[in-house]
Amino acid sequence: MSRPLGVGLLGLGTVGTGVARVLLGKRDALERRIGRPVQITSVLVRDPSKPRGVSLEVPLVTDARAILDDPAVDIVVEVIGGEEPARTLILEAIERGKHVVTANKEVMAKHGPAILAAAAARSVSVAYEASVGGGIPLIGPFQLDLAANEITSVVGIVNGTTNYILTRMTESGASFADALREAQELGYAEPDPTNDVEAWDAAYKLAILASLAFGAPVMPEQVWREGITQVSQRDILYAAELGYRIKLLAIARLVNGQVETRVHPSLVHQGSMLASVDGSFNAVQVEGDLIGSALFYGRGAGSEPTASAVVADLIALGTSAARGSRQAARHAVELRAMSQLQSRYFLRLLTLDRPGVMAAIATVLGDRGISLASVVQKESVVLGDDVPGAEIVLTTHVASEAAVQDAIATLRHMPVVKTVGSLLRVHE
Amino acid sequence: MSRPLGVGLLGLGTVGTGVARVLLGKRDALERRIGRPVQITSVLVRDPSKPRGVSLEVPLVTDARAILDDPAVDIVVEVIGGEEPARTLILEAIERGKHVVTANKEVMAKHGPAILAAAAARSVSVAYEASVGGGIPLIGPFQLDLAANEITSVVGIVNGTTNYILTRMTESGASFADALREAQELGYAEPDPTNDVEAWDAAYKLAILASLAFGAPVMPEQVWREGITQVSQRDILYAAELGYRIKLLAIARLVNGQVETRVHPSLVHQGSMLASVDGSFNAVQVEGDLIGSALFYGRGAGSEPTASAVVADLIALGTSAARGSRQAARHAVELRAMSQLQSRYFLRLLTLDRPGVMAAIATVLGDRGISLASVVQKESVVLGDDVPGAEIVLTTHVASEAAVQDAIATLRHMPVVKTVGSLLRVHE
Repeated sequence: MSRPLGVGLLGLGTVGTGVARVLLGKRDALERRIGRPVQITSVLVRDPSKPRGVSLEVPLVTDARAILDDPAVDIVVEVIGGEEPARTLILEAIERGKHVVTANKEVMAKHGPAILAAAAARSVSVAYEASVGGGIPLIGPFQLDLAANEITSVVGIVNGTTNYILTRMTESGASFADALREAQELGYAEPDPTNDVEAWDAAYKLAILASLAFGAPVMPEQVWREGITQVSQRDILYAAELGYRIKLLAIARLVNGQVETRVHPSLVHQGSMLASVDGSFNAVQVEGDLIGSALFYGRGAGSEPTASAVVADLIALGTSAARGSRQAARHAVELRAMSQLQSRYFLRLLTLDRPGVMAAIATVLGDRGISLASVVQKESVVLGDDVPGAEIVLTTHVASEAAVQDAIATLRHMPVVKTVGSLLRVHE
Repeated sequence: MSRPLGVGLLGLGTVGTGVARVLLGKRDALERRIGRPVQITSVLVRDPSKPRGVSLEVPLVTDARAILDDPAVDIVVEVIGGEEPARTLILEAIERGKHVVTANKEVMAKHGPAILAAAAARSVSVAYEASVGGGIPLIGPFQLDLAANEITSVVGIVNGTTNYILTRMTESGASFADALREAQELGYAEPDPTNDVEAWDAAYKLAILASLAFGAPVMPEQVWREGITQVSQRDILYAAELGYRIKLLAIARLVNGQVETRVHPSLVHQGSMLASVDGSFNAVQVEGDLIGSALFYGRGAGSEPTASAVVADLIALGTSAARGSRQAARHAVELRAMSQLQSRYFLRLLTLDRPGVMAAIATVLGDRGISLASVVQKESVVLGDDVPGAEIVLTTHVASEAAVQDAIATLRHMPVVKTVGSLLRVHE
C-alpha cells in the first residue's frame, strides 16, 4: 500500500469539524478516488479538552509546529478563519514545502497575491475553492472551465447573512433590525454582525473573484462598499411596486479596460435569476466573451458545503490535478473610480407637501443631465411636528455617479427636502 | 521556445470554426496560459473548396490519416458530430497515443465507457466538457469540484431547442407547430427536428451526466424518454393557472440505491430557478450529500460557448491538469424501472358533459390509491359533432407510475372519456 496522503488540519470549528467528518466518513471512497488513503495526522486546536461533535482517532495538538514540522503532512488545511494567525501559518506551511488548502476569504483577499507568489516560488499549490461561495464551484471554473474566456463581468450574491435578512424583510415585512435579530437567533448572523451587514465579507469574496477573473490583484479596500443597514422596508415596498427586489450585489466589471468593483444594495428585476436567489443561498453570474452569460448557484456557507469544497481541493491535490496557484496574470488592470460609474438609480425623498417641490427636484436632476425613468408620489405622509409631507420615489435612466452624487448634495441642502431616504443603484 | 502543442481538428462546421477562431484569435493568451504555443496542425474537412468564415493558415485535409498519423499532433479535437465516423476516429486517435477532446454527446453517451476504457489503457485523456451544456461547466465540476459528494439527483434543462419552443408557447401562446417553425427559421431547430423534439439529444446528455454522477454507465436507451410534440397550448395554460410552467426535464435520481433516469415534459413551480430558465438557455441542478443543492446555468449550445468548453479542455490537457478520463467507478448501480416512479401527475381529459362523469373518473383514480390534489373543470367545451363536452384537469398527490398508467388505460376505455389529452409529471 502506498503511503497515505497526510493532512494536517489547522482548526476544528464548524468547518474543521465538517472536513474531519468527511475525511473519516468517506475514507474508502476517497482512497478509491485518490489512489491512496487520506490520513489526518493531527489537528491544531486551542483547547484540546473542549468537547467535540466528532470523535477523531488522531492527536489534537496546540502547537502548530507539530503539524508544520511533521514530514508525514503533505497538505495543510487551514480552517481557522480570520487574518492571524492563519496568514502566518499558511506562509510557514508553504515555506516547508507543503501544499495548502484554505477556506479563508479574509486572508486570500488581503494577502492572496503574496501567498500565491510564495507558493509558486516553492512549487507548491494553494487551493482556496472554499473561500468563496461554499459549496458552489467558482474558483475551479474560473481557473479551468472558463479559462478560454475574457471575463467581462462578475455579479454575485455572495453573502448569505445579508441575503437572508433582505429576503425576510421582503417576505415578511420585517424591519432590518427585526430580520437581523431573527438571523442571529438562527445562527445565520454573528453576535457582532458588522462583517456581514457592512459588506466586508462580500468585499473579500469579490476581491478574490475579481483577481481571478481579471488576472490582476484587486484588494478588498479598493472595493466600493455599502452595507445593508440603511435599507428600509419602504425601499423594499417601492422596489416591489416597480418590479424589483433589493439584493446586496457584489459587482466587478471591465469597463473601457478598467475594472470597476463595488458591493452595495441593488434593485434587480423580479423576473431575473439573481432575484430568485433567496435566503442563505448564493449565486454568481459571470459574463465572458465566449460563454455569454453563465450563473452558478448554491449554498454559500455552512459546515458541509464548505467541507465539500475543501475536500474537492484535497482530492485535486492528491491526484495532482493541482489547481489553485496557477493564476495567469493576463494583464495589469487599472481600477475605475466610483465617480465614473454609469448606472440607473433609485431615489427616495421625504419633502414638504407644497406646490413647486416636484419641479424644484426635477430641475436639480435635469440640470445635471439626469433623466427620470419613473416617478411615484403617494398621498401625503406626516413629517415631524405634524408637518404634512410627501414621499417621492424616482428612478433614473442611466446617469453618472458623479452627477447623481452632486444632485444629492444639492437636494440635501434644499429647504423643501427633509430627508434623502435612500439612494440605491438599479442593476440591469 | 518549447515545441508547440499540436492540435489536429476533425471537422470545421459551426463548432470547429468556433474552435479555430478561438485558437487563432487568442493565440497569445493561450500561450501564456499553457506555457507553449498552440498550433493547429491540420483540419479534416469533407470539401476543402467550400468557402469558410475563418481564414486558417493550416492545411485542410480530407484524409483523417494526415492528422492521426502526424507525430506533431498531441491532441485530436473531434467536432464532426454524429456517431460515425466520429467514434472510429476517436478510438483510432487514442490507439495512436493522442489525447482527445470531443464535443460529441451521441458518441460519448453511446460509447463513453468503451472510449474511456481505451483511453485509460493507453494512458491518454479524453475530455468531453463540450458534450453537455455548451458553455456551462458541468463535466469539470462533476469530476473535480463535486468529487467529495455522493450525488443523489441531477435535474436539467439540457436541450435549448425544446426549451425555446416551450418558452415561445408560454409567452406568445403559439402552438407547438408554430413555435417549432419559428425555431427552425431562427436556426435553433434542424429541418428534421426529431433528435431534439423527441428528446434524443436530452437523453444523450442525461446518460453522460448520470454516468458521471453515479459512477456507473447509463446508456441512452435506458433513459425513459418522452418528447414535447404532445404538449399543447391547453396544457401550458392550465399549468400556468395552477402556478407551474412546462419544461422538458432530464432527471437522474438515486432512489433506494437504484438509479432512475427519465426525460419528459414536466410541470415546474413558477417561482423555482428551473422555471426561470428560458429560451435557448440550459441549466442543471445537482443535489449532493454535502453541497445540498447547486445549479449551473448558461448557454447550452452555439459556436462560441461550445468552443469555450473545447478550449478549456485543451488548456487543461496542455497544462496536464488532465481531466476527462479520470472517472471513479464508485459502485455498480441498478436502473430503476419507470413503473416504480413515485411522482405527482397532471392529467387533462376531455369527457362527455353529463352527470356522474366526475364521480366515475374519481372512482377509477381512488380505487388505485391515487389521491387528487386539485381539480379544475371550466364551462363546457364542444366535442366533435356538436356534442357538449367537459375539459377536466386534475393534479394528483404523489402516486405510483404503475397505478397511474393502469388508471389511464381504464379511463381510455370508458365511454364518457373522449380523449386523454395529456399525462404530465409534476416536478417537486
